[in-house]
Amino acid sequence: MTDRRNDLTAWDRNHFFHPSTAMGAHARGESPARTIASGEGVYITDTAGRRSLDAFGGLYCVNVGYGRQKIADAIAEQARSLAYYHAYAGHSTEASITLARMIIERAPANMSRVYFGLSGSDANETNIKLIWFYNNILGRPEKKKIISRWRGYHGSGIMTGSLTGLEAFQKNFDLPRSPILHTEAPYYFRRADRSMSEEAFSAHCAEKLEDLILAEGADTIAAFVGEPILGTGGIVPPPQGYWRAIQAVLRKYDILLVADEVITGFGRLGTMFGSDHYGIEPDLITIAKGLTSAYAPLSGSIVSEKMWNVLVEGSDRLGPIGHGWTYSAHPICAAAGIANLELIDELALVDNVRVTGAWFRAALDQALGDHIHVGDVRGEGLMAAVELVEDRDDRRFFDPARKVGPAVVAAMLEQGVIARAMPQGDIIGFAPPLCLSREEADQIVAATLHAIRQVLG
Amino acid sequence: MTDRRNDLTAWDRNHFFHPSTAMGAHARGESPARTIASGEGVYITDTAGRRSLDAFGGLYCVNVGYGRQKIADAIAEQARSLAYYHAYAGHSTEASITLARMIIERAPANMSRVYFGLSGSDANETNIKLIWFYNNILGRPEKKKIISRWRGYHGSGIMTGSLTGLEAFQKNFDLPRSPILHTEAPYYFRRADRSMSEEAFSAHCAEKLEDLILAEGADTIAAFVGEPILGTGGIVPPPQGYWRAIQAVLRKYDILLVADEVITGFGRLGTMFGSDHYGIEPDLITIAKGLTSAYAPLSGSIVSEKMWNVLVEGSDRLGPIGHGWTYSAHPICAAAGIANLELIDELALVDNVRVTGAWFRAALDQALGDHIHVGDVRGEGLMAAVELVEDRDDRRFFDPARKVGPAVVAAMLEQGVIARAMPQGDIIGFAPPLCLSREEADQIVAATLHAIRQVLG
Repeated sequence: MTDRRNDLTAWDRNHFFHPSTAMGAHARGESPARTIASGEGVYITDTAGRRSLDAFGGLYCVNVGYGRQKIADAIAEQARSLAYYHAYAGHSTEASITLARMIIERAPANMSRVYFGLSGSDANETNIKLIWFYNNILGRPEKKKIISRWRGYHGSGIMTGSLTGLEAFQKNFDLPRSPILHTEAPYYFRRADRSMSEEAFSAHCAEKLEDLILAEGADTIAAFVGEPILGTGGIVPPPQGYWRAIQAVLRKYDILLVADEVITGFGRLGTMFGSDHYGIEPDLITIAKGLTSAYAPLSGSIVSEKMWNVLVEGSDRLGPIGHGWTYSAHPICAAAGIANLELIDELALVDNVRVTGAWFRAALDQALGDHIHVGDVRGEGLMAAVELVEDRDDRRFFDPARKVGPAVVAAMLEQGVIARAMPQGDIIGFAPPLCLSREEADQIVAATLHAIRQVLG
Repeated sequence: MTDRRNDLTAWDRNHFFHPSTAMGAHARGESPARTIASGEGVYITDTAGRRSLDAFGGLYCVNVGYGRQKIADAIAEQARSLAYYHAYAGHSTEASITLARMIIERAPANMSRVYFGLSGSDANETNIKLIWFYNNILGRPEKKKIISRWRGYHGSGIMTGSLTGLEAFQKNFDLPRSPILHTEAPYYFRRADRSMSEEAFSAHCAEKLEDLILAEGADTIAAFVGEPILGTGGIVPPPQGYWRAIQAVLRKYDILLVADEVITGFGRLGTMFGSDHYGIEPDLITIAKGLTSAYAPLSGSIVSEKMWNVLVEGSDRLGPIGHGWTYSAHPICAAAGIANLELIDELALVDNVRVTGAWFRAALDQALGDHIHVGDVRGEGLMAAVELVEDRDDRRFFDPARKVGPAVVAAMLEQGVIARAMPQGDIIGFAPPLCLSREEADQIVAATLHAIRQVLG
């Protein structure tokens, strides 16, 4: 066993190029490495036998929790009968068709079709291509620019990394690229004018959006892309009235709305979709993570009836759409998706998000709300964040070089709880599996409080 | 059963947005739709019980053939023990580490690390980002343009669809985008000057490449991307001396070489990689399809020692790389990859490619080589194509509006054999599973001959 573990360590350092990792430090063995062996509920266990409560659900994705044999069985059965066939030129499998139906049944009103991809990034690529195709069919070849928000996260491909509005994913990669533009982040806690009410800040965000549209020319703006609640940008629910104000501007200038629900889709906010939660009426919805609870890689673009009708008109004129992934609608991934969506219903997880999510946020607030270095405790459903500040009254942030967020998260891990230090700001992020119990929520809160005291006193 | 099939048909037409499909025709039920239920060896069977010999291996991807229980078992076992954990910040699973090692063991010389993705498209996105990062680290911020070939296929994302040099994947999507440039396709049969020898045509391609580099300025050209043998562009092996001549130009101007081995990787040409077959020394290799034989979605970028050292230098200076997919190194996909690579060895499939591939191409040549409408029979290993022409002696092509290629492929399907009408030209493409037997090869040849006679006389 030790030999095996030594071998794995060597192979890992010598051959495996990890995402979002300091490559040299990892290869030289200077940074922590961890090999995960199994999982059960909200817990994972590594090859050294160390067990942790995963309060980030993988990467906000293991919605039903680890170790669900129902999904494993569905994957196994599909692998045995038909592991693969493509979906090009009208081909399908029972699993891919069934899952498309189940998604549309659960989606917000006026949604029509599902295009399947593998990752949230590639689904957003598909969305951009569909938006451009749409405006070409409508004879508006100039209407192609896409606006996203600073601090939005929409992937780390070249165009999807451009949609993303976070420095770490853009710097040194020559991103963002044209024709992607960014507007104000709906980040009330970090608003410039602290005297603004939430409603006033929402109106301000809508005004900034309208200013950008007018400066560029409304005839050049195709779409606006946003997460219902900012995810990797800091887990930030929108201020009161935000989506109503934004949608009014978009409608005024005939601009499509893409709701990136990679994190919020399938229950995370206590509703099946974040769009339902905030009254968003999107033209396209990006889905991934919660669609399979990460048991297999699967994403999708849900296309509204309005867009679909134009795409059909285009295809009738131009022939088959020149867009496809070999693994679009992969049967094993679709089988995982079906079992996962059934499980979300059977376990009433969306209800649990509302109940346990409220409990968790109340407990966070009660334990941490008065701490001098806690600037903000926020969240919705089972997404939550604690933002740490040097000075609470002046809302003075820590010097990023101090790496306060990562230190708190490392101290939490010592106590057996995984949280995430969000990449821009000293923000402790939480997105546990949706099956979280109150006892587990309390355990997360206790570990957070203990770690903050340990690091900051 | 009939009710179930009727339900599936309705759900398919009403909810499922298929890749590379005429959307309106599919939704209205005007075009053929087929739901695949199972597979065994080179055969698939649909829900109506119709069995077909899949002479295209899905989309050139089911290398080990359908129904391999060894891979299904590996997937099932991984799903039961740990369906998912991410690979960010130095995390891993035994499966992901083991597969990284197995890939490097099989890769051409001087390859160092594997970054895992999901699709060939996203692996090429990763490659472009790494190339730009590389030149930023080396202090060459202007050296960013990427050259691919007309008729190359490198994906259908926005940048990867730009790398692709095929009209159907670019028109109506505003592709290609800057900074992607295209050079001459290494398509000897379609050369402008028919008096040229293969060697002379290779020299001509190298000259055209050098002309483009000089016109743009060598200091602005970062990389050249090419498939060892053109795939979707027509299944075209390179002319004699092509890769030697191209690589000489690239070395002269310090331009990186990306070998897109999504199709040729893991045995298709009778060598583990196409780079080995043609003496290509790449800086990056794109892998997907054959890596798992499509049993689960997995791709990768294999990074050379030379590039890795620069990336490490960059990461030491700048911190963790801001690039990642949630499903990078997904354990179920890695488990499928391990079992698949083991199976390729156990069944000696690479040897079978050489033997049965030669048999298949000889049989195609013998049966079709003299047909008046067959302009070219070509291939390498178990990739082959038959190019149909109106007039063999004048090399006059059919009017594309006649859709001769699709008609031949449809006639083949009637006889129970799946081939692919390649998208640009009347080209019948073959890429069967690597376990093809001589009897099965003969069956494909017979069906092709019969169909060509039926359609063209």
